[in-house]
Amino acid sequence: MNIEALYNISYGLYIVSSGNKETGNGYIANTVFQITSEPQKFAVSCNKNNFTSEFIKKYKAFSVSILSQNAKSETIGNFGFKSGKKINKLNGFDIKYGKTNVPAVLNDSIAYMEFKLTDEIDMGTHILFVGELIDAQMLTNSEEPLTYDYYRKAKKGVTPKNAPSYIKKEKKGKSEEKIYKCNVCGHIYDNNTEKIKFEDLPEDWTCPTCGVSKSEFSEI
Amino acid sequence: MNIEALYNISYGLYIVSSGNKETGNGYIANTVFQITSEPQKFAVSCNKNNFTSEFIKKYKAFSVSILSQNAKSETIGNFGFKSGKKINKLNGFDIKYGKTNVPAVLNDSIAYMEFKLTDEIDMGTHILFVGELIDAQMLTNSEEPLTYDYYRKAKKGVTPKNAPSYIKKEKKGKSEEKIYKCNVCGHIYDNNTEKIKFEDLPEDWTCPTCGVSKSEFSEI
Repeated sequence: MNIEALYNISYGLYIVSSGNKETGNGYIANTVFQITSEPQKFAVSCNKNNFTSEFIKKYKAFSVSILSQNAKSETIGNFGFKSGKKINKLNGFDIKYGKTNVPAVLNDSIAYMEFKLTDEIDMGTHILFVGELIDAQMLTNSEEPLTYDYYRKAKKGVTPKNAPSYIKKEKKGKSEEKIYKCNVCGHIYDNNTEKIKFEDLPEDWTCPTCGVSKSEFSEI
Repeated sequence: MNIEALYNISYGLYIVSSGNKETGNGYIANTVFQITSEPQKFAVSCNKNNFTSEFIKKYKAFSVSILSQNAKSETIGNFGFKSGKKINKLNGFDIKYGKTNVPAVLNDSIAYMEFKLTDEIDMGTHILFVGELIDAQMLTNSEEPLTYDYYRKAKKGVTPKNAPSYIKKEKKGKSEEKIYKCNVCGHIYDNNTEKIKFEDLPEDWTCPTCGVSKSEFSEI
């Protein structure tokens, strides 16, 4: 088995959101795909631990924002590596409440779609949410969609553990002192060159590039 | 509703195959995606009319070959726009019978994966085949995977009607005489410049570029 083969499957990157005008949440998904054309039905594989799954079940609808290749690391960090159980991830973002009344994130996105939930399929660790397309709108025609491949290669991003495509041992390395890498933006913290060792940084220290917490760094 | 938004969903292009050493079939799919990481489960949305679906049901396994960006139009034409009910689509291709004993197409592919069928989910016009990963092998490290976006833009390919992501009215045009375009490779047959009108070509005429039959041309 050569697990490297799996990296050649092509995915986009999306913000999947649900809720209403008072409350809501969104997360970064890569497994958004069409499953039938008549009617236009789509599926999203969502980890059961994912806070957004509770909103999708309750509000029976979800939105998908198609991220731009120019999406900021902070946006990916906010939706991909923070938990809506602790913060309101939608705070400070431009939100559209469309035909289904669920929030759709407009920032850093080239288009968004809204779906009415039609099926919830239990897949063990994940739920496959199936939705019928209710609306779709373009936000810009001048930017390319962000692909998972581009995210990994150009943005040097990694995969959250909750993602269906998470593959163990993404890290490897060797050096005298430990080196850490931000899971979100790829920022390197090298104990060989920094005055303070990473382990000794205060717990409220955040990534100087994308602002995520210390816990989002992995040793490489 | 702006259906253009749907074109910004990122997909790869794959040959999904099933059968055994005596018989088998394969087709071009774009909706191959991982749904859980423990165990490593993947899903494929397959039209019920698709001949390969009968093999997957019978042999309880399927393979996925990840097409290369350099894949030949003839290969896409063979698996994407011909029916295995009429010809043996695997004839003349390099086939690997791996751990699950189903055929995996090696030509024009950068990797292949094999899956044991675990679920068949009825989605109306399509079946969602879910499989557990049994094996994965790289075939080359020097080529990029073919994406649907690249296929549409660089190879000027279109979508078969059976595909879950098929969108009506991909064609538009205006001219004195009719113009036809090959659905597979994008070859243009223009009645304004050709001596014989497309309608008058014999039924066994084939695309001079990729070799598919006359029926695979659409008026634009």
